[in-house]
Amino acid sequence: MRQPQMSLRVGLPVFVVVTQLFIVVLFALFVTYDDQTDAKLQGNETVAMDNALYKDYPFFADIQVMIFIGFGCLLAFFRQYGFGGMVFNFLTATFAIQWAILVQGYFQFSHDGKIHLGVTNLINAEFACAAVLISFGAVLGKTSPLQLLVMALLEIPVYAVTEWAVLTYLKINDAAGCILIHVFACYFGLGVTFVLYRPRLNEGHAKEGSSYQSDILSAMGTLFLWVFWPSFNSVLALKGDDQHRAVLHTFIGLSASTLTAFALSSMLNRTGKLTMADIQNVTLAGGVAVGASVDMMISPAGAYALGMMGCAACMLGYRYLTPFLARRLRIQDQCGIHNLHGLTGLISSTAGICAILVASEEVYGPSMYETFAHMAPVEGDPKLLELQEQIPGLQPGLGRTALEQAIYQVAALLSTIVVSAIGGVITGFVLKLPYFGSPPDELCFDDDLFFEVPHNYEAPITFSNKCRPTTEDSAA
Amino acid sequence: MRQPQMSLRVGLPVFVVVTQLFIVVLFALFVTYDDQTDAKLQGNETVAMDNALYKDYPFFADIQVMIFIGFGCLLAFFRQYGFGGMVFNFLTATFAIQWAILVQGYFQFSHDGKIHLGVTNLINAEFACAAVLISFGAVLGKTSPLQLLVMALLEIPVYAVTEWAVLTYLKINDAAGCILIHVFACYFGLGVTFVLYRPRLNEGHAKEGSSYQSDILSAMGTLFLWVFWPSFNSVLALKGDDQHRAVLHTFIGLSASTLTAFALSSMLNRTGKLTMADIQNVTLAGGVAVGASVDMMISPAGAYALGMMGCAACMLGYRYLTPFLARRLRIQDQCGIHNLHGLTGLISSTAGICAILVASEEVYGPSMYETFAHMAPVEGDPKLLELQEQIPGLQPGLGRTALEQAIYQVAALLSTIVVSAIGGVITGFVLKLPYFGSPPDELCFDDDLFFEVPHNYEAPITFSNKCRPTTEDSAA
Amino acid sequence: MRQPQMSLRVGLPVFVVVTQLFIVVLFALFVTYDDQTDAKLQGNETVAMDNALYKDYPFFADIQVMIFIGFGCLLAFFRQYGFGGMVFNFLTATFAIQWAILVQGYFQFSHDGKIHLGVTNLINAEFACAAVLISFGAVLGKTSPLQLLVMALLEIPVYAVTEWAVLTYLKINDAAGCILIHVFACYFGLGVTFVLYRPRLNEGHAKEGSSYQSDILSAMGTLFLWVFWPSFNSVLALKGDDQHRAVLHTFIGLSASTLTAFALSSMLNRTGKLTMADIQNVTLAGGVAVGASVDMMISPAGAYALGMMGCAACMLGYRYLTPFLARRLRIQDQCGIHNLHGLTGLISSTAGICAILVASEEVYGPSMYETFAHMAPVEGDPKLLELQEQIPGLQPGLGRTALEQAIYQVAALLSTIVVSAIGGVITGFVLKLPYFGSPPDELCFDDDLFFEVPHNYEAPITFSNKCRPTTEDSAA
Repeated sequence: MRQPQMSLRVGLPVFVVVTQLFIVVLFALFVTYDDQTDAKLQGNETVAMDNALYKDYPFFADIQVMIFIGFGCLLAFFRQYGFGGMVFNFLTATFAIQWAILVQGYFQFSHDGKIHLGVTNLINAEFACAAVLISFGAVLGKTSPLQLLVMALLEIPVYAVTEWAVLTYLKINDAAGCILIHVFACYFGLGVTFVLYRPRLNEGHAKEGSSYQSDILSAMGTLFLWVFWPSFNSVLALKGDDQHRAVLHTFIGLSASTLTAFALSSMLNRTGKLTMADIQNVTLAGGVAVGASVDMMISPAGAYALGMMGCAACMLGYRYLTPFLARRLRIQDQCGIHNLHGLTGLISSTAGICAILVASEEVYGPSMYETFAHMAPVEGDPKLLELQEQIPGLQPGLGRTALEQAIYQVAALLSTIVVSAIGGVITGFVLKLPYFGSPPDELCFDDDLFFEVPHNYEAPITFSNKCRPTTEDSAA
Repeated sequence: MRQPQMSLRVGLPVFVVVTQLFIVVLFALFVTYDDQTDAKLQGNETVAMDNALYKDYPFFADIQVMIFIGFGCLLAFFRQYGFGGMVFNFLTATFAIQWAILVQGYFQFSHDGKIHLGVTNLINAEFACAAVLISFGAVLGKTSPLQLLVMALLEIPVYAVTEWAVLTYLKINDAAGCILIHVFACYFGLGVTFVLYRPRLNEGHAKEGSSYQSDILSAMGTLFLWVFWPSFNSVLALKGDDQHRAVLHTFIGLSASTLTAFALSSMLNRTGKLTMADIQNVTLAGGVAVGASVDMMISPAGAYALGMMGCAACMLGYRYLTPFLARRLRIQDQCGIHNLHGLTGLISSTAGICAILVASEEVYGPSMYETFAHMAPVEGDPKLLELQEQIPGLQPGLGRTALEQAIYQVAALLSTIVVSAIGGVITGFVLKLPYFGSPPDELCFDDDLFFEVPHNYEAPITFSNKCRPTTEDSAA
Repeated sequence: MRQPQMSLRVGLPVFVVVTQLFIVVLFALFVTYDDQTDAKLQGNETVAMDNALYKDYPFFADIQVMIFIGFGCLLAFFRQYGFGGMVFNFLTATFAIQWAILVQGYFQFSHDGKIHLGVTNLINAEFACAAVLISFGAVLGKTSPLQLLVMALLEIPVYAVTEWAVLTYLKINDAAGCILIHVFACYFGLGVTFVLYRPRLNEGHAKEGSSYQSDILSAMGTLFLWVFWPSFNSVLALKGDDQHRAVLHTFIGLSASTLTAFALSSMLNRTGKLTMADIQNVTLAGGVAVGASVDMMISPAGAYALGMMGCAACMLGYRYLTPFLARRLRIQDQCGIHNLHGLTGLISSTAGICAILVASEEVYGPSMYETFAHMAPVEGDPKLLELQEQIPGLQPGLGRTALEQAIYQVAALLSTIVVSAIGGVITGFVLKLPYFGSPPDELCFDDDLFFEVPHNYEAPITFSNKCRPTTEDSAA
């Protein structure tokens, strides 16, 4: 077997132990319960079933499945890197969520000098974690676990600051995190992989393929993501009809992109056969494509069309753009996140902007100013009082016009791309430091470097090459 | 490798693209939001958490897991057809749901010239989809993806019309879709496979077996179906105690049938060993067996007994009836759907009829006329007013006696069998048309025909035949 | 192949059929609906959505996934015992739940001579089942299915009596079942395996290892348990903030133990590589470690620290204690349940006692007497009236001081250990009776003894030994 790696035996434990002690101290100093979890704040008016837990926990559980099982299986598609895909996803996700609880908590959930914790924060932290896992897709198989943890350590603060700045100053509509999760994660990941460029991998790598079992496992991951994506896209939408539309649109968008993916996968293959990588990735494009407008009145047909468009862009990206980026721009995007999250995210953002531009009270009724909170009249505007008669409790907004709101969306999109790409590049340079145990080219995509592997982990493929079976198969 | 298939490279994409364009146009013309999803219909009285989403979405998510992951894994049991089982299930399900939204929506959810869409429709569409997937089980491994799509294209309208006619004119009790899903799907599938008869497959096929991994995968599918079946059986029951009973009975029925399946599997095997196919299929019989009476007061012991009976019938069907049907009646039922859905469905329907015949106000109290809505007194009957004092909001019914209701149940059962079998046979003839790329006998159960497969997809079985290991195994 | 086993062909079916008939008769005589499921008890005041179903079913569904899929996959880690791990878990769990419905129902849910059934009982029965499955871990691969059923038959009554006695007489706080599930199950299982000691297995066994696929499957099981553990730990907590805290603490505890497990796994390995068995088991320690104090105000940092401590103890137990127990104390703990459930359970119980000792109205407010119901003032105490003004509906308690409550916790812990260990030893002696088909040493961990296995079930490992591939792998 290979020599023990200093970085693994020392680097990983030291990093984890130090960050854990750091985190537990910060928890002790700054993290407390929120109003829904603190026993002391339950008065004699409190109705137990009104606790936010019951509104949000079912969605949270679905997102947990997506993060840990969906991503975990999906990323386990390399035939000798199944442990790595599934287990490093587990490690990275766990760390990213803890870290996000603190960093995002500082920006968004703190008052009186404390971060107030409840299920809502966990959901937001899992969103931040999703961004890290998407970026992870760009460098899958080419990074040590320590590098992944360092990436999460750096990406989470960049994410949290961007999110906070965009939500606080630009005040955009982005219920499903199209801009803040998908676009951010994509360009951050591309920035990292750009710096970590490995020219020799462009010539192909012996272990880069999948096996029959790993392809099935990865497809299961896709199905878990597919099935629970409506929960992901809707959890932060306004309760009621907004959230209901988010579920509906996500389902329709995914459904449309799935069919399109099958059609294109077959059409673009010389022999007409289906390619499992397409089924595993491109079918999901619809979930991203509807993201930016998921809670708006885009109509079921609109969601359907978005799913088809997102899927087509994603598929063409895989076929033509990814190889181009790798060869010409030194961007080796291992899982093609630029197709599934970048291109599709851009389409989605554009659609969101269009949906904002055409939004009208005629279509939404007065609840338009709930969905587009920043377009609600400002405090003191007589129109606000009028609206509040129809919607009691409507908050005053910024009185933005649709065009103004659209411009802020564009600003948010562009600044997110710039910040994330720069953040990714800087992170890439940090990851290149020699301490982090980056695997040598020939040991990429290989579990043996990081895991005690059972004897058979490389058997199947070798066998099929060495003694390829003849045509007469045995009867069962 | 094999030659490119015209049907695959041209047929599949053309079919998908044409139907998608057709569907998106129909969506644009005829599909709009329902009262729960339309922003404009939210008045100042609307309480966000009263949205139907919160009552139905958790059940919907469970059913999604069943349809896409449960069925997907269960159908992936062939050792060289794992991609086919899982991925064609994904393709067919997605298409069937979209198509059902339109067709079923036309019959059941349309008014003012529009189909009004919300989570409820999606649940109903997934029920229609379940019927297609059950029928798919009869022809698994012997059909091209294009044939499966055409089957869904034809089965959904037959299903939707049958459902609509039965619910509108016969007005039966069938909360878990025993008659309309299981019995319908079974006889439709048998009709299809009858026409697609392949005499050479009766002699056995080299690739028809499972592998160790595929058997485990398929058992996982079974467990997902098992675990969420209570959600499936209860989602359309009346909210409250009816739905609660449906959950309880389904759990008990499945639990009983699981134990019986283990006992019979061992007992009927010459060496007393367990057969994985029994564990994968027969354990689920209880979920079907309690279906027709799932919301009635059949008592926990009744559910238990039904589970045992359904399981016994199903198991004996697998052992004796399936081979008989294949050899004598030209009905090659690949997954044995006649056992799990047909025989068990008939037992279930019979039990449902008995439960109706013995239903009494003594047992149900006045809420009997909620569970059996058609037996409620007609408008104007003084008994109705009396009941409405006890149950405010009770709807007038048809004043049927238990016997009358039972007769309608029988009529629904028989007409469903006839319509579905005829529909299946006609569909079978359509599928036989040469355009749809039916696989030749020797390439049945083989992923290589439709997928780019990794090198090792056929390794394990061949290896074990060629160099069967000696008894001394290596130490771990 | 091996000779048919009498115990399998006769013993298993006879046992199952006899117990099923026995159970269905007991169901018929003694099991009826509870207030939430009985149609007759729905009055004109009943609001359908107030049914307990809607509060508990989502949690129940999550626990179902844990029991059947989480445990099932986790226990399937032996390379030639994947069927056994997954399928015997299915069999044992199903039987244990049915039996627990009756036995636990008799002690806890019966009045008027009947057991009143609803989702709440099912949840409690699944808790009892979890105890059996944990004990199963101690003897995995070394027992016939008939022995497992007999073990469940005996363990459930011991569990139900212990639970009833502890809850009725000692009246402890144990919302997540730390003492009653984890500690009980651990010492019961150790008692059984102590009696079933097989000296030859201490020398290692050819089939005891995992394969690449089985390790991935088992890690999936871990992820399912991890993801839904907050539901398990919180389902029986008080609704509202208590349940919310239980979710939060479980998530944080698991998250902390996961990172610690990675650090220690790498640190304790000579080459710094990660060991999959650690990822599969030790990551889960945090879920147990927070158990006994999961609904208390232990603070997020407290949950974090508990997760780290539980994990460290668990990991050191695997490395040093398990081999010691096997060699010196004749306790062969196959899955290391003593580490994950015993040691961690003791830490958890201790933490729970500390949390009780420091509990104060200052921290909890008046709702302290809801969380610690037995410390509420007795009926007639003027303090009770005062508290009831702040919390309407507060039940009178026993007026215990914190110290008194702590002493009862200790008493419960010690008596549970004693009773479970004795129960386990007795059960072990019963299982040794010759009728139950205990597998011979050389056929342990081998599916071939109990299942019709596909040809390839032992292929991969043998191949990798016989023709170990050279370093140059083929390109994908």
